[in-house]
Formats: sequence, structure tokens, C-alpha cells
Amino acid sequence: MKQLKRFYSRRYSRYFAPRWQLPLILAIAIVMVWAGGAMAQSLSGNNVIQFQQTLQVSLDTAWVIFASCLVFLMIIGFSLLEAGFCRQKNAVNLLCQNLIAFSLTSLIFWLVGFGLMFGDGNPFFGMNGFLMQGADNSPNTGSIYEGVFRSLSWASVPLQVKFFFQLVLAGTAIAIVAGAVAERIQFFAFFLFCLLFVGIIYPIPGHWIWGDGWLAQLGFWDFAGSTVVHSVGGWAAFVGAVLLGPRLGKYQGGESFALPAHNLPLATLGGLVLWLGWFGFNTGALMAASPLIISHILLVTNLAAAIGGLAAMLTAWFYFGKPDLSVMINGFLGGLVAITAACRFVDLGWAAVIGAIAGTLVVFAVDFFDRLRIDDPVGVISVHLVCGIWGTLAVALFAIGPEVSINNSFSLYEVGPVKGLLLGGGLDALKQVFIQLLGITSVSFITVLLSWLAWILIQVVVGLRVSVESEFKGLDLSEHGLNAYSGFVIKQDSSSKLPGKNQGLLPPEKRSSW
Amino acid sequence: MKQLKRFYSRRYSRYFAPRWQLPLILAIAIVMVWAGGAMAQSLSGNNVIQFQQTLQVSLDTAWVIFASCLVFLMIIGFSLLEAGFCRQKNAVNLLCQNLIAFSLTSLIFWLVGFGLMFGDGNPFFGMNGFLMQGADNSPNTGSIYEGVFRSLSWASVPLQVKFFFQLVLAGTAIAIVAGAVAERIQFFAFFLFCLLFVGIIYPIPGHWIWGDGWLAQLGFWDFAGSTVVHSVGGWAAFVGAVLLGPRLGKYQGGESFALPAHNLPLATLGGLVLWLGWFGFNTGALMAASPLIISHILLVTNLAAAIGGLAAMLTAWFYFGKPDLSVMINGFLGGLVAITAACRFVDLGWAAVIGAIAGTLVVFAVDFFDRLRIDDPVGVISVHLVCGIWGTLAVALFAIGPEVSINNSFSLYEVGPVKGLLLGGGLDALKQVFIQLLGITSVSFITVLLSWLAWILIQVVVGLRVSVESEFKGLDLSEHGLNAYSGFVIKQDSSSKLPGKNQGLLPPEKRSSW
Amino acid sequence: MKQLKRFYSRRYSRYFAPRWQLPLILAIAIVMVWAGGAMAQSLSGNNVIQFQQTLQVSLDTAWVIFASCLVFLMIIGFSLLEAGFCRQKNAVNLLCQNLIAFSLTSLIFWLVGFGLMFGDGNPFFGMNGFLMQGADNSPNTGSIYEGVFRSLSWASVPLQVKFFFQLVLAGTAIAIVAGAVAERIQFFAFFLFCLLFVGIIYPIPGHWIWGDGWLAQLGFWDFAGSTVVHSVGGWAAFVGAVLLGPRLGKYQGGESFALPAHNLPLATLGGLVLWLGWFGFNTGALMAASPLIISHILLVTNLAAAIGGLAAMLTAWFYFGKPDLSVMINGFLGGLVAITAACRFVDLGWAAVIGAIAGTLVVFAVDFFDRLRIDDPVGVISVHLVCGIWGTLAVALFAIGPEVSINNSFSLYEVGPVKGLLLGGGLDALKQVFIQLLGITSVSFITVLLSWLAWILIQVVVGLRVSVESEFKGLDLSEHGLNAYSGFVIKQDSSSKLPGKNQGLLPPEKRSSW
Repeated sequence: MKQLKRFYSRRYSRYFAPRWQLPLILAIAIVMVWAGGAMAQSLSGNNVIQFQQTLQVSLDTAWVIFASCLVFLMIIGFSLLEAGFCRQKNAVNLLCQNLIAFSLTSLIFWLVGFGLMFGDGNPFFGMNGFLMQGADNSPNTGSIYEGVFRSLSWASVPLQVKFFFQLVLAGTAIAIVAGAVAERIQFFAFFLFCLLFVGIIYPIPGHWIWGDGWLAQLGFWDFAGSTVVHSVGGWAAFVGAVLLGPRLGKYQGGESFALPAHNLPLATLGGLVLWLGWFGFNTGALMAASPLIISHILLVTNLAAAIGGLAAMLTAWFYFGKPDLSVMINGFLGGLVAITAACRFVDLGWAAVIGAIAGTLVVFAVDFFDRLRIDDPVGVISVHLVCGIWGTLAVALFAIGPEVSINNSFSLYEVGPVKGLLLGGGLDALKQVFIQLLGITSVSFITVLLSWLAWILIQVVVGLRVSVESEFKGLDLSEHGLNAYSGFVIKQDSSSKLPGKNQGLLPPEKRSSW
Repeated sequence: MKQLKRFYSRRYSRYFAPRWQLPLILAIAIVMVWAGGAMAQSLSGNNVIQFQQTLQVSLDTAWVIFASCLVFLMIIGFSLLEAGFCRQKNAVNLLCQNLIAFSLTSLIFWLVGFGLMFGDGNPFFGMNGFLMQGADNSPNTGSIYEGVFRSLSWASVPLQVKFFFQLVLAGTAIAIVAGAVAERIQFFAFFLFCLLFVGIIYPIPGHWIWGDGWLAQLGFWDFAGSTVVHSVGGWAAFVGAVLLGPRLGKYQGGESFALPAHNLPLATLGGLVLWLGWFGFNTGALMAASPLIISHILLVTNLAAAIGGLAAMLTAWFYFGKPDLSVMINGFLGGLVAITAACRFVDLGWAAVIGAIAGTLVVFAVDFFDRLRIDDPVGVISVHLVCGIWGTLAVALFAIGPEVSINNSFSLYEVGPVKGLLLGGGLDALKQVFIQLLGITSVSFITVLLSWLAWILIQVVVGLRVSVESEFKGLDLSEHGLNAYSGFVIKQDSSSKLPGKNQGLLPPEKRSSW
Repeated sequence: MKQLKRFYSRRYSRYFAPRWQLPLILAIAIVMVWAGGAMAQSLSGNNVIQFQQTLQVSLDTAWVIFASCLVFLMIIGFSLLEAGFCRQKNAVNLLCQNLIAFSLTSLIFWLVGFGLMFGDGNPFFGMNGFLMQGADNSPNTGSIYEGVFRSLSWASVPLQVKFFFQLVLAGTAIAIVAGAVAERIQFFAFFLFCLLFVGIIYPIPGHWIWGDGWLAQLGFWDFAGSTVVHSVGGWAAFVGAVLLGPRLGKYQGGESFALPAHNLPLATLGGLVLWLGWFGFNTGALMAASPLIISHILLVTNLAAAIGGLAAMLTAWFYFGKPDLSVMINGFLGGLVAITAACRFVDLGWAAVIGAIAGTLVVFAVDFFDRLRIDDPVGVISVHLVCGIWGTLAVALFAIGPEVSINNSFSLYEVGPVKGLLLGGGLDALKQVFIQLLGITSVSFITVLLSWLAWILIQVVVGLRVSVESEFKGLDLSEHGLNAYSGFVIKQDSSSKLPGKNQGLLPPEKRSSW
């Protein structure tokens, strides 16, 4: 025994983590069983649990960090997608906005957002855990958990990992906003909106759904964030785009002009990186490496993306005569957004249907917002807002139902949405449809309200939009004093002339806003 | 005990996965031992196995998903490599082809390909498991396995994970094809070939080797797919390139003209991402996180890549006078392709030799196919077909032999190729050489035959090649109506003139086809 | 029992790894307990340890491979960052240098470097383990370890994984050098310096600190390599940049001219990929998936990066009037470099301080080196050398102290730096400051000395700098015969004229060297 203890304490001094503790206790327990200790029975049971828990926590932690790194890839993906889809004279600006967005998120979500979203409080917002302070004995879970982040007490990973996963999710939400306000917003205005959005706007509906707030208690389900992340980001983007108005030259004489993407390989790379990152987004939401569930989510996510891309491409091919690359990218992104809420709750076939509808929706939504004269340079409103709503609703239509097994071997969930309306869920499913619609509506309302207040406040204090001269010159030069591509010869179309003088020099192509 | 059960059922309702089951059963078993149950003995033994198996399955699943994500990175890598190596007027087309290829793969491999490749059937193709339907009690393995995917029953991960890893592998195989037919194929023709290739052509030789088909039973070894993935993709690419003929302006007056890569940073990024992704390709093939084996595979893979790149660069430096970037990229890719079959079976020194030969081979193979007037814009035939064949053969030359330990501590494999011919394997090794050659030949034959039939069928139905006008204009405009780089001033060399009028405007540089 | 053994041996023939061994032995042990074996007691204890150790080793191995793949991403990140920050005419050259650097590292670190750095030897260099030969029974640790890599015997992962992690770290160190000597060095000269740096220069101070050398024994702490990797790379870069002299046109008539980055989206992608990769760099250094420690390191690393970027941006905004993208990128990289030494030893608040100071330092350091007329095209000296020194010193200022718990639940380290000077560490902390300064000084001295010898040797043998004609023409054409961007129209500013004739054609902008 002494020898064991020595070994243990030497190891301990290396790793400092208590992972060697438990097998020893187990060993001791076995010895005690042998020796005939009267209370050995329950003790050994507890210790075996503890033993497995230690390894399980290590594995789950590694898994969630892996998933978080994939979500970090999505932040890179958004940067590239948005920079690639904008015009060349604004590429540096888009990259700066994405860098600053994630940097500020890292700061503000730590200071305020995380506590507001997940800290114990009332059904409407959290009131604890700012600066990650306050008691927390994670990775303990359930009734053993003691701390101020009760809404995350189901996840048996350290608090820091829960925080980091939620941090990168918040980072993707603000990245969505950057795409819709692109090419005309003041850098400092976006800087301020980041603070307000990640600090206040995003956490509040998030608390309602993931922070054990009133929607969670009603039975609203959004597994990985179609509403919490994508619709909320989409609505904030929508309000920003409406208040900013369209880019100069976008709508002239009642017609919509394409302001074409300046670097499609960059945008495609961004889109593909988002696809890859989404595997972490959706599987990471489980915060555990449960093999059957994460592999199911993985397949469902991939299929919805693939079908979404195909559906969008075929729709565009049919209507516009060409298979368009940007449409394809936004199609698979739409499929990914839509499957996010339901990825744990539906089987492969229905995932394909969700993806197909999402991909088709994106094409028509882009056209719809274009007709409304809402200028969304990257298409984020169509992708994240519209498909986010669709995906949240789809949960009530296609959920497989609790305790239904897949492959005769496991149940995807025991607590969750009832069997979907289109699978014959009946009255219960209708009630679920109603709850999902209530959630969509109330989250939309609060997000639009708060975003509108934030944007207006910023407009009053520092102004929202750059000057006409700056916009023509490009934000790269006017806001950052840089060229994205020094040494290349650039076309002088819209970058040197002011409107009124010669609008004819604006891009002459006339197609839908892709 | 009651307390434990309550804890367990609360947890269970969170995770739904049976991972808490086993320690409890173990605890109960220990109690039973104490209480003197007569049959406690074997029960506890089984449960301890089950206990470890649960954690092991979780870890292995997480590992294979990680590896699959790396292989997904390869699909991104292929997109960038091929887009970067082609001319600017076709960049969007290459990206679209790669997007559509993986999207269709996700659909068709699920519907047909996976069942044909891994479903139970005869030695030539699978006949079960289409749509992933049919019994399967994975992650149970071996004699406990019950289901229709017996050829994958050695892997103790859920069926969904086996499927996903094989899906991304299939995605890389079709990505290879896209490179060889680039810059002149009709988009719809490639669309159709994707369906036929991933649905039928790729799975059939795959079944022979990885689906417990006749080659597997003969003792043919291809650990991670030099033949199954790379040669098969390479042959399909070869047939396509031959039937399409060279790009306009490539061969004029008996001479070969370089049509230079339009974005080498993009291509290099693609190549490096492929290198990284290959770590998942080769280690994931084990479908388990066995520490000594995966770390061995990792090192061997990296060294072959590095030496392949160096060898190709030095060869080109010596012959052409300059260290060429494209050569270096295709050199390390050649090293990676070649080591894929043997990565588990050889030690570091021989891996370096395999990589060095592969890197050198690539340089001469490019020249060889160029002399044959087979136009392969990206060099995939030289990299994937030639090095795939070399790597498959190398198994029989350099395999360390079963049960030979590395570092005095473990054996890389107990069942596998015999000790290699150049390591003194003698007659047994000669037999292995023969089996490897038989596999290479028969897989080549079936792939060429089926690909030829598929390409011809497509040619008859919709045609293979775009019009001369479209090719000169570029496929981005003619097939997709897009410019990859709006706002940049582009040279008007080959993109606006038709041949016959003024061929002199084609790129004037005269070098080997790199 | 027989049935179990059969099961075990069947499984074994599949995986070849001994992971099934232990539960069986445990099962047997339990049976022996029941049967009343006299020595069952200690046996079962040992086996339970071994059982957990097997799974733990598998998990830790998977974790370190994951971390290594992230560090490999950093090598990709450096390639893109440096290619994007240089001028277009040298982009291919930068990419070639980075490819060749990692390829040579893979070869030379295996042949020489790893043994010199980690092999048993004297306090100044290792003398064993070249070619990874020599005894090693990893993953055994501590007193059970037998082998020639005693300095790594604390890590319970296979030797191959320890090697691979250190290999990619060495790859990042040489990638740093490539940035400072860019745009004017001969390709072959850099080729030779790679061999000398990775083979000899880098391993020697590395041995002092991580190889149980004299600095480690003194109590010098550098957790993940602010000094070992970044300062050493930074000093070698510094010496190279000094000996090479500035690029043509950089300093004219006493003034510093900006030679602007040619592809900022590419550079930003590189920077973001470095950020992501750093999560592996810092958490991988633990070589174990200890949940609380790795998640702490993750948060600390991310916060220092975010604050570093913000601080640099705000500083530049205040001094130069614009939020500059390049400054922001180098700011967060500076934060990352600085937190590397201390990431395990400090809490979140102090990490933010370390990052803020690093980000500010970078801005002034760039200006400082510019005034010294040391031309560092990518800013690596300011980022890696200056912030590496700052981060190493910060350990002694902000360390939380051994055995201080975080979140009332765990201690970050039991052996490590004493409580920091600014946290009230008193005399002990002053001693730690002195030791850190001694380490910084001595490592600086040896690295400068050896690098200087190496660069001079290369200068004498093959020459360092390309000809004036080649430099004006661009290294892509002169060294590699390639254009990075064929088909694009390129500005003819500095790429076609020789100096003397018309210096006015050089980039006319006059700003700090960003």
C-alpha cells in the first residue's frame, strides 16, 4: 500500500489533477470488501462511479474543447466568407470587423454576457456569475452541483469549458451581424454594437432558452441554437441593415444592381470552413462524447448541409439558368442553420427534408429581401434568420419523439420535443408547434426591440454610416488607411467616382442580388 | 443503493447514453462477490470488460470523428489546390465542382455506395445496407456483432461513425477526378459522373479490398487506401482526361505549353491542408485510438510527406534549374499517397524511402503524361494514380512483418503483410508482391472499364466537353455566369480570343506542364 | 473464463494494443479476491492503476495528437501570414521557404535535433536518442521509466507522440525566422540555415530549459515556450535580418518607406489560424488531457490574444489615427506569444494584463526596430522576440503560486514558479525574477552567438543575399521561375526598375513599417 501511495503522490505532483485518486480508492475499496469492512458496499459503488466519472470528464472535456476549436474555425469561416463576398475596397474592413468582434466578445462575454445568460437569476435574465465569479463545483452535475450556473449543471465538464464553448458561439452570432451591415457602417459604430450585442442583447433570449428561463420551462426546444444563435444574430443584422439603408449604387431607378463578390475562392473557403466548423457547433452542444448521439448528430448535420446546397443550386439553376456558386454556398449554410435546432431530434430522412426546404428558402428569401430593398451584402439575413426560424419550427414537425430508438439500440433523447406533427404527433405536436412559434415570436420581438434601441443609440452618439465619399473610396482606405491587395491593378469602377457625376460607372450587371 | 440508482437515472435522463450503466453493474457485482453470490465470478469479469468497453467506445468514436474532420479538411484542401492550380477563368468552376462532388457524395454514398461497398454480399459487391438500413448492433464487434455490415464488424464504434469516415474518404476520391478533367468539362457531365462514380464505380473495388471481398481474402493489403481511394480516383481521372482531350492551347505544333496556375498561395494552402488532413486519413483508418499504433502512423505519414516534398524539389532543381513550388506540393502529396497503404506496416526509415521514391516519381510521371499528350491540369494522375500504385506495391517490399516489435514494446500488427521482399522476406514476400500486383492490376482493370463506360454514357447523353467558345471565355462565365475576382484587372490572354484567329495570344511560356 | 480469454485474443488480433489486457486482469483479480488468494490485495491495486492508465494513455495520446495537429495549423498559419504580408513578387518564395522549412525540420529534428534537445546528456546538450534510437519504455513514467529520454519521462504518452509535438514546435520556431529574412535572402541560404537551426541552434537552449538542463535545475520556468520557441526563433530572425540588411527601397534618404502587404485577407487568415493553433500549442505542452488545467490554459490563452489585439489596435488608433489591420494581427499574436510561458501559472485577470502589455509593446517595438533600420518585413522580431521576453519575465511577476486553488477546486501546479512579485511574492519572487532574467539573457546570448556563426558560415560559403536585379525582379521569378498570380495585371512599381535609375517608382507611402 505504501508503494502505491508513493507512486500516486509522485504522479500527482506531475499532473495535479485528481485522476489517479479514484482507482486507488477503488483498489482500497476492494481490499476493504475482502477484509470485511461493514460499510464497504456503498462506498465501493460510489467510488466506481467516481472512477469512471474522472475518465469520462477528461474525455468529455477534450471533446468539448475539440468542438470549440471547430466553432472557432467558424469564426475564421465567417471572416473569409464575408470578406470574399464583399467588394475589394471593403475587404480589410470586413476582416477588421470580424477580428474586433471576436476580441470584444472574449472580453465582454467574460465580464457580463455569460453571467446574464447562464447565471442564476429570474426567468428573464441571469444575475450571477459576472467575470465568471461565484461558486461553481463543476464538473459535478445535477443535485451534487453547487454554484451559480445551475442552468449548465447538467454538463459534466469544468466551468471553463462550458464558458469557452458558449464564448465561441456568441462569437459566431456577432459575426452574422457583420455580414449584413458590411460595406457602409462606421467601424466605431460596429465596435460599439459588438459590446451591446454580446454583453446584453444576445444573452437575454439566450437565458430564456438555454439559461432555464421561461421558454425552457414552457418546453421550447432548440438543441444547438437555430434560434439562440442564428435567429438572434439574424434579427440584429436585419435591424442594422434596415437602419443603415442600402449601399450606394445597389438600387438605382427602381432596379437592383449586383455589386459582385470580389474573391469567390476566399468566400468558398470560408463557406467550407463553416461547414466543417458546424460539426463542432452541433455535436458540441451535447457537451459530452456520447458515441451514439454525437455520431448521429454528425451525420444529420452533414446531410442537411449537402441537401441544402444541392437544393439551392438546382433551384437557382432552374430559375436563373446557371448553377451559381454563391447560391450553393448560402444553400448549404441554410441547411446547416436549419438543422441546428433539430439535429438531435430527427432522423436522417427528415434531416434531408429540412435541408432541402432550407436550401430552397434561401434562394427565395434573398429575392424577397431584395424586393424589400433591404441590402444584405452577404445574404446572412436569408441564411441565418429565415433558416433559423424554419429550423426551430421544424423541431415540432419532424421530431422523432422521446424514447424512440434508432438502429434498435439507443434513444436519441428521453426528454425533448414530442413526436412531430408530420410524423403523426397529433394534439401534443400541435401544442409543440405552438410553443415553438411562441418562442420564435417572443425571441424575435425582444431581439428586434433591443437591437433597434442599440443601433439608434449608436446612431445618435457616433452615427452609423460612413460618408458618401468614404463609401465610394472604400472603407479600407477611409477607415483603415490600407489596401487589401497592394500591387494588383484594380478596376476603377465604383471606387473613385461620386454618385450624381457618373452613376453609369457602377457595376452594370443586372441580376438578383447574389 | 437507492441513492445510486436515483443518481444514475437522473444522469441517464440527461445523456441517454448507457455509459453510467456499467460501473453500477460493476459495483453491484463487487457487492455480490462480497455477499457470496455463487455466479458472481464470471459476471464481474464480463462487466469489467463492458465497463472499459463503454469508455473505450466513447474515446474511439471521438477519435474517428476527429480523424473524419481532418479528412473533411482534405476535401477543402482539394478544392483550394485545384482552384489555385487552374487558370483564373475557371476557378469558380473548380470550386463548384468540388462543392457539388461532396454534396452528391453525401447523398449517393448514403443511398447506394456504402451498402455496395461494405454491406454483406458476395466477394464482388455488397447487397445490403442501402440507405444505412438493415440490422447492425455496432459498436459490438467480432462474434458478438449482428448485422449486415460484417466487413466493418472489427471496428468498435457506432455504424454512423464508420459511415461518416468512409463518406469523407469517398469524397476525396471524387475530388481527385475533378482535378484531371478541369477547365474543359461540362458542369452537368461532371455532376452525372459524381453520381456514377460514388454510387457504383468506387464502391466495387472498395468492396474487394475493404468489404471482405476476394482480394481481401487473398491477402491483399492496403491499410488506408493507396489503391482503394487514390488509385481508383486516379484511374477515373485518367480515363476522363483521355476522353476529354487536352485543353485548348496546351499542345500546339507538337509542343507543350504551360497554362500556369493562377493563384499559388491558394494552391499551397490547399496542399498544406491536405498534408494536415492526411494525418486523419491514415490514423483514422484504424478506427481506434490505440496510442502506439496511431502515433507510429502519424510519424511515418509525416516523414514520407516531408521526404517526398524534398525529393521532388531537389529533382526539379537538378533537372529544371529551379526549386519549383508546384513540384514541391505535388511531391509531398505523392509521398502522402504512397505511404497510405503501408503506413501501419513499415518503420520510419523505409517510410522515408517510400516517400523519396514517390516524390521523384511524381516529377517524371508529370513529364511522362505530358509526352503522352494527356492533359492533367493539376497533376492528380501523377500524384494519386502513380504514387498510389507505388505505395501499394511498397507494402510487399518494406513491410516490417507481423509480430515484430517497435521500440521493444509493441507489435504494429499481428495479421498483415509478411516481411517485405527487401527486408529478406524471401518466397513469402514474393507471393505478397504477386498478390499486391494482382490487386493493382485487377482494380485498375475494373476501374478503367467502369469509368470508361460511365464517361462514354455521359458523352452520349449530354456530352462531355464545353464548346470552344465557352472554353476560351472560361467556364466561370460560360457555365456559372460569374467572375472569381470581380474588380481585379485580368490579363486578356486566352480568355477572349478564339483559336485559329490568333493562337499566338495563348500563354507563350514553354516549359514542362507544371 | 475460457470464453473471456478467447474473446480477448480475438480482439487482440484486431487491435494489437494491450488495452483489453487490464480489465481482464482486474476481473481475475476480483475473482482471486473472492477465492481468497493471500497476495490478491496489492495485485488488484496495481492492476486497477494499470487499467486506468491504459485508458488514460489512450486519451492523452489522442489529446496530444489533436494539439499537435493544431500546431501544424500554426505552420500553415505562418506560411499564409508571411506570404500575405510580403510583396506579391515574393509570395511564392515565402511559401517555398515555409514548405522547405517544415520538410527539413521533419528530417533533421528526427536525425539530430530531438536527441540533442531531449536525449540524456549533460546540462548543456543531449547526447542520446539521435534518429529516435535508444531505449524508451514510454508511456511509462517517473521511476518506472527506462530509456534515454529521461527529460520527457514525466509525460505518459508514447515517445512518438512526444516527438511529434516537439517536431511541430520546432517547425514553428524556424517559420518565425522565415518572416524576418523575407524578400531578400537566397533560397539555398535559407535552406542551409534551416538545417543548422533545427539541427543544432534550437535544441541547445531547448535542452537547458525543457531537457532538464542547467536552467531547468535552477528553477527557470517557461511552460509552453515563450523563450524556448519564440525568443529563440526571434533572435535567430533578428541576427539574420541584421546581417542581410534592409530590403531595397525600404530606407531612402533617412526615411522609412512602407513596402505594403500584398494580400491582407491571406495574412489575416494566417493570423487567425495561428490563434486557433495556439490553443494546441499551449494546452498540448501539458501532454495530458487533465480537464481543469487544459480548460484553464485555453481560456487564459484566448483572453491574452483578444486583449493583445484590442490593445494594439487602440494604441495604433490613438497614435496613427486609424485602426490598422496588420497592427491588430500582430497585437493578438504578441498576446499569444507573451502568455505562452505563463499560461498555466496565471489567472484570467493577469492574463489580460500580460496580453494588454504585449499588444502595446508590439506597436512600439515595430517602431523601435524601424528606427534602428532593422528591416523585418512581417514584424516577427517585435512579436516573437520582444513578447517572448516579456512573457518569460511575466511568469515571475504574475504567477499565482503553487498550490493556490482556482475555483476552490484545484491547484494549477504544485511545482512551478513562486507567487509573483506583483502579487506580493516578496524575496522569493525577486529570486524568481532574477532566475527568469538569467534564463532570458543566457538563452539570448547562446542563440545570437550560434545564429551569428551559422549565418556567417552560410554567407561565406554560398552568400546570403540575392542580387540587386533578382530582388527588384522579385524572388518568385529569380529563384523559382514562377508568378504567384498568373493572369492578374500587376503594378509595375518596384518590380521592373533598378535603383539609381528611378527610385521614385518605389512605393511612395511614408508610414511606420506596418
